[in-house]
Amino acid sequence: MTDSRPPVSQDLSSHMESLGLAARLASREIARATSAQKNQALLAAAQSLEHNKENLLQANTQDIQHAQTAGQDAAFIDRLSLGEKGILSMAEGLRQVAALQDPIGGITDLNYRPSGIQVGRMRVPLGVIGIIYESRPNVTADAAALCLKSGNACILRGGSEALHSNQAIAACMHEGLKAAGLSANIVQVLDTTDREAVDLLITMKEYVDVIVPRGGKGLIERISKHACIPVIKHLDGVCHVFVDESAEISKAIAISINAKTQRYGTCNTMETLLVHAAIAPRFLPSIASLMREKGVELRGCSESRRYVAEMNEATEADWYAEYLAPILAIKIVPDVDAAIDHITQYGSQHTDAIVTEHHGNAMRFLHEVDSSSVMINASTRFADGFEYGLGAEIGISTDKIHARGPVGLEGLTSQKYIVFGDGHVRS
Amino acid sequence: MTDSRPPVSQDLSSHMESLGLAARLASREIARATSAQKNQALLAAAQSLEHNKENLLQANTQDIQHAQTAGQDAAFIDRLSLGEKGILSMAEGLRQVAALQDPIGGITDLNYRPSGIQVGRMRVPLGVIGIIYESRPNVTADAAALCLKSGNACILRGGSEALHSNQAIAACMHEGLKAAGLSANIVQVLDTTDREAVDLLITMKEYVDVIVPRGGKGLIERISKHACIPVIKHLDGVCHVFVDESAEISKAIAISINAKTQRYGTCNTMETLLVHAAIAPRFLPSIASLMREKGVELRGCSESRRYVAEMNEATEADWYAEYLAPILAIKIVPDVDAAIDHITQYGSQHTDAIVTEHHGNAMRFLHEVDSSSVMINASTRFADGFEYGLGAEIGISTDKIHARGPVGLEGLTSQKYIVFGDGHVRS
Repeated sequence: MTDSRPPVSQDLSSHMESLGLAARLASREIARATSAQKNQALLAAAQSLEHNKENLLQANTQDIQHAQTAGQDAAFIDRLSLGEKGILSMAEGLRQVAALQDPIGGITDLNYRPSGIQVGRMRVPLGVIGIIYESRPNVTADAAALCLKSGNACILRGGSEALHSNQAIAACMHEGLKAAGLSANIVQVLDTTDREAVDLLITMKEYVDVIVPRGGKGLIERISKHACIPVIKHLDGVCHVFVDESAEISKAIAISINAKTQRYGTCNTMETLLVHAAIAPRFLPSIASLMREKGVELRGCSESRRYVAEMNEATEADWYAEYLAPILAIKIVPDVDAAIDHITQYGSQHTDAIVTEHHGNAMRFLHEVDSSSVMINASTRFADGFEYGLGAEIGISTDKIHARGPVGLEGLTSQKYIVFGDGHVRS
Repeated sequence: MTDSRPPVSQDLSSHMESLGLAARLASREIARATSAQKNQALLAAAQSLEHNKENLLQANTQDIQHAQTAGQDAAFIDRLSLGEKGILSMAEGLRQVAALQDPIGGITDLNYRPSGIQVGRMRVPLGVIGIIYESRPNVTADAAALCLKSGNACILRGGSEALHSNQAIAACMHEGLKAAGLSANIVQVLDTTDREAVDLLITMKEYVDVIVPRGGKGLIERISKHACIPVIKHLDGVCHVFVDESAEISKAIAISINAKTQRYGTCNTMETLLVHAAIAPRFLPSIASLMREKGVELRGCSESRRYVAEMNEATEADWYAEYLAPILAIKIVPDVDAAIDHITQYGSQHTDAIVTEHHGNAMRFLHEVDSSSVMINASTRFADGFEYGLGAEIGISTDKIHARGPVGLEGLTSQKYIVFGDGHVRS
């Protein structure tokens, strides 16, 4: 695809072409499927996962052994491992998606126009979703379920290390589809570990409508760079909490601690704490000591270091950093404008929160911070499909086109205009 | 940008860079502007267009003379010509956009979640819109107005033949912005006729959020192919009317005649008429003679030729054709399935209509035809921003990602999640 890479083999190219065509045809079938059929497929697939537990564990063990032989580290093996609990949790996930309301066919804003026609919008599937992910095999079931329920066909490409697990999970999804009288091509899992297959998948404009990469920043960057199909993605989660002058100290402490320490490795974890200069003397010493109790390393601007003993000075790179670790950058700002400016300059448009009792400042922050989630007096950790009531999420988007923020079923759909007349013509 | 083109000059590259940066900064200003400010800018710009009528006519005459010297044809000169009426109509357009409701800041679906937080969505601008168009100078005012009202900065690049007209219109827009205390960089009109400028504009990911090409298919294809920024566009309008077995003949005739003959050159004009075999004997002879009275050339499938004397046989190419001319392809189909299949295979996902009194067939057509507008018993000519009540449109999109169908103010916006808490943390 790039000049430096060898040309893709003819065989792989025609394999991907036929896979794409099959997905396109299958997308028409699943677009027409009733809610009952889609739910039946999901419930039968859940049952199949439970019935085939032994097979799944065996396939997963095979993958784990390969990964161990290849010298992968413990964190990698952990992500790859399903275990019995993982299998039951996948099945439960399918049942949860079955319980969600079907977005497809929903009609909104159907109103009469002066010409006499009625104009409204109907929610429709996107078509074919390509999902590219890394070593977690549970994504196979989770992503397939969301695509299926939203009336989309999907082509899944998991990490090569999880090939056997993914194929075993795919077989269960296919059993579910079959039980509902639906084509297996609605959920296709790539059976090749060839890296060129991804390059083809993300450029098959005719057959694939949107690409969702799930995984590390390297994967997402590579895909965004080379895809010529729209990509739903986020690259970074450099999330901020701004503690305003009028913040209630107890709320500011609770939110900051939760946003930083509830989980360190998630994209909605706070990475930089911004503190209004007027509240710094009352707030900074206590939050610093609480953070340190939790084992969080602090890096502060020169002004903030006056309030916190033995804190290293933050460098310019710290303001851009997504640590995904027990490290926190701290900066004192003179006012809400400076806080918004800092977030605009260094943030990643993911999730940012203000802690304040001042209505005007809260509203300014809400309107002017251009992030996919903006919060008042709440922890950034709430930025999540389940917490927002979407039921499940296929990812979080920090782009503005199409879906923004946590992407659930609705983000995998579009709306077409519908017009009802009774012989109406335009004059 | 492609291998075959010469490298872009350093000068142009840095010029575009500074233009892009100015647009990005201006986008923050217009995003924060109040409705009153935006309306003031639009109304003052309208007034400025009227006050500067003579200057505008002079600039336009200059462009027209150049075009005539360059040997452009009458249709081209017609598109390029403003005239006094054109100027007043631009001013009226600005006032109409001022009268539209401001979409920015609108909050929807603000509901409490079990955790106690309130989650909703707020409508926000996209940021910077790049608009590339051809010889019609009125697009400068129309497009700038929609971007401004939707809180976006824009970079406009009109056809080089309209350079003087576009600069004169830009000056009026700037006067309007100034009157409202807003930066002129909110509406930037490229002052270079260098074609490379377009290549740079459509690849400046950092500074431009979406590209809207307006013009002929050649322009749109070129831009879609090379852009690495999302493009809101439609390539073809191969629109169908399907006259079902149960159609009322009078409605079928009225709709078909309107869809084909009200205007030949528009993207929502019918290009292929599909007729159910059972109604063909009653419908085809009369519609054929009416179409011929209007001067429409007919091209039919072999079966339809049995009902219409001296009709040429349609070739495969006719089913794909967007004639934009008084030519109509006619095909007899055995049932609604065959009609949907034909539209799926040959259509362009723009606008398709069924004429039927059968509720089940109407609903199947509505659900299964995957086009940006799907109509029951109404003319395809209704597919239009004004007719749909959007107030104005920046274009029609046949893509499924982001905006679909006529794109008005809402299509130039996005939604972010907002969360209200009172010290809430995630457990």
